[in-house]
Amino acid sequence: MPVNLSAPDPASLLPVAGVRLGIASAGIKKPGRRDITLIELAPGSRVAGVFTQNRFCAAPVALCKQHLAQGDIRALLINTGNANAGTGEEGLRRARRTCEAVAQLMGCAAETKGVSRQVQIGGSTITVTGIAKGSGMIHPNMATMLGYVATDAAIAPGLMPQLVKEVADVSFNCVTVDGDTSTNDSFILIATGQAGNAEIADLAGAGYAALKAALSEVAIGLAQAMARDGEGATKFITVAVEGGRDRAECKQIAYAIARSPLVKTAFFASDPNLGRILAAIGYAGVTDLDVNTLQVYLGDVLVAEQGGRAASYTEAQGAAVMKEADIVVRVVLNRGHANATVWTCDFSYDYVKINAEYRT
Amino acid sequence: MPVNLSAPDPASLLPVAGVRLGIASAGIKKPGRRDITLIELAPGSRVAGVFTQNRFCAAPVALCKQHLAQGDIRALLINTGNANAGTGEEGLRRARRTCEAVAQLMGCAAETKGVSRQVQIGGSTITVTGIAKGSGMIHPNMATMLGYVATDAAIAPGLMPQLVKEVADVSFNCVTVDGDTSTNDSFILIATGQAGNAEIADLAGAGYAALKAALSEVAIGLAQAMARDGEGATKFITVAVEGGRDRAECKQIAYAIARSPLVKTAFFASDPNLGRILAAIGYAGVTDLDVNTLQVYLGDVLVAEQGGRAASYTEAQGAAVMKEADIVVRVVLNRGHANATVWTCDFSYDYVKINAEYRT
Repeated sequence: MPVNLSAPDPASLLPVAGVRLGIASAGIKKPGRRDITLIELAPGSRVAGVFTQNRFCAAPVALCKQHLAQGDIRALLINTGNANAGTGEEGLRRARRTCEAVAQLMGCAAETKGVSRQVQIGGSTITVTGIAKGSGMIHPNMATMLGYVATDAAIAPGLMPQLVKEVADVSFNCVTVDGDTSTNDSFILIATGQAGNAEIADLAGAGYAALKAALSEVAIGLAQAMARDGEGATKFITVAVEGGRDRAECKQIAYAIARSPLVKTAFFASDPNLGRILAAIGYAGVTDLDVNTLQVYLGDVLVAEQGGRAASYTEAQGAAVMKEADIVVRVVLNRGHANATVWTCDFSYDYVKINAEYRT
Repeated sequence: MPVNLSAPDPASLLPVAGVRLGIASAGIKKPGRRDITLIELAPGSRVAGVFTQNRFCAAPVALCKQHLAQGDIRALLINTGNANAGTGEEGLRRARRTCEAVAQLMGCAAETKGVSRQVQIGGSTITVTGIAKGSGMIHPNMATMLGYVATDAAIAPGLMPQLVKEVADVSFNCVTVDGDTSTNDSFILIATGQAGNAEIADLAGAGYAALKAALSEVAIGLAQAMARDGEGATKFITVAVEGGRDRAECKQIAYAIARSPLVKTAFFASDPNLGRILAAIGYAGVTDLDVNTLQVYLGDVLVAEQGGRAASYTEAQGAAVMKEADIVVRVVLNRGHANATVWTCDFSYDYVKINAEYRT
């Protein structure tokens, strides 16, 4: 599928000092499939996470939260093929037993998919590497997103919860395949402290900003890859909303467009269907929005303004943009200086096929 | 499609004194198609409406609101094949010219689809008849819902705005096909006052309650027919949420289930996929929901309790329910006395086909 051509190049992955990765087959759903990833961490590593807001939070997520609160994390175990969600107390017991078994098992060959970056902080070279499991990336699994980003930077443990939230907000929290929120969504940030930099201890300092930028770049790459690999995806769609009063209203409008089944089937059909995009903007829930003062662009083409189709717009222009595998929808609200970007994919026959045939 | 078998029987439609219906071909999108409905009202008829909350409110909707505010409505003109949305000032001018033309044109043969009921109020027989245009009912058109319910009851004009809202809240506001809100959604209530009953003037009286019940029954029938006839629908799904603290949280959970593409593709596949239903309950946004104290039923079968799969549940039971064309999902929250019901349909290959091939 052309949409996947620009996915991250696995060859560019850099090792992070203090982190070892292993993959194995546990025969969870299909025999012989590599369904387990183990991330081993050096002593002293800092770990923080953000997790699904779903009230049916899966057992492994509940346990992971407990362990992160206790600190001193030495390994992360990730499986596919079984969500262990909606499994009550028995599910929790099983997740706990699995963790106990891992404690005796460390060490195997590294291989995975991901994104890497390096950045200089206070004279030290900091490495950032991230891996992710997402919609269709390994297997369609409720569009579950699991993201793990590791760096060898030294950072005060007190800053980790804030940092992981800020990075998630511009990356994993900006991607949608079908609007469903899984019981297992998790994003974990690891800092092993082995790069030799002076510990980053100030939220307002240059070191924090530089590290956050590198982490965000890696996390955005992973998040975009999830949309590119969305179930049945044939197109990668970026929805950018600019000139809003605050980021929240920009995100609300971007998500209304990115989640609309009508907009997404139109993209699948390469149909520059203005009406569906305008309708999604209109029902996004920004109740005082003046639709007469906003502009909508498909790629570089101005398609709507003054409450309707732009006078200069021809359907041939829109059709040319829609033929691409990588499409940007831009909405300029002209009522402030905030903006937000959301990534998604189109909605195809294969989305229905994959999700109708998939049995939990 | 079996889902449509229980749609309302057109033969049961009763005329309402003071209302005449006409249908004509205007060649709006396809030559020869009957794309215009005219509803002519006797002098003195009361009319009230509720309309789309979409900020891109279509020109005919904006004009209809103006005319209802002025009062003395003598005719309603409804078209398909052109939404006249996102058309700015020119769209408004055209809608206005169309209304002027109708003023000279009244009178033609009645025929349409709908639902009728009769009720006794203060010794008079009151007739209620409703017609609707919805998703796929006439043509797939952004799942636009247009509902018109007429009665010959006499009712004080001051009560009409409240009555139309109350009826919409239990009918048209409880149906979803794909979660998109059209620029044109409208529900219009007409009372011609020709039944001979003493004018209903008290919101707390028995007459108001009886009329509201009859109107609601008709409007619910029309709303359900919209879900049954949803684009590509093969199953009609009722989502009933009970035992909530208030109606709002029940509706929130019911809509989360009814809108989930993952739940809807599972219904299409006749797959009793518990995980997807539980996940939708969990992400509905009721942040203090305790998932360990709720029950979920498919038809009469208890499928989930205590945070997971019910001990008594077998997949064969779930599979038997899912084979039906008419399925009830029931969620019992056990935290209050409120409830809400939402109707929807499944999500099939044909949903994608219809919406990918449809061009505005």
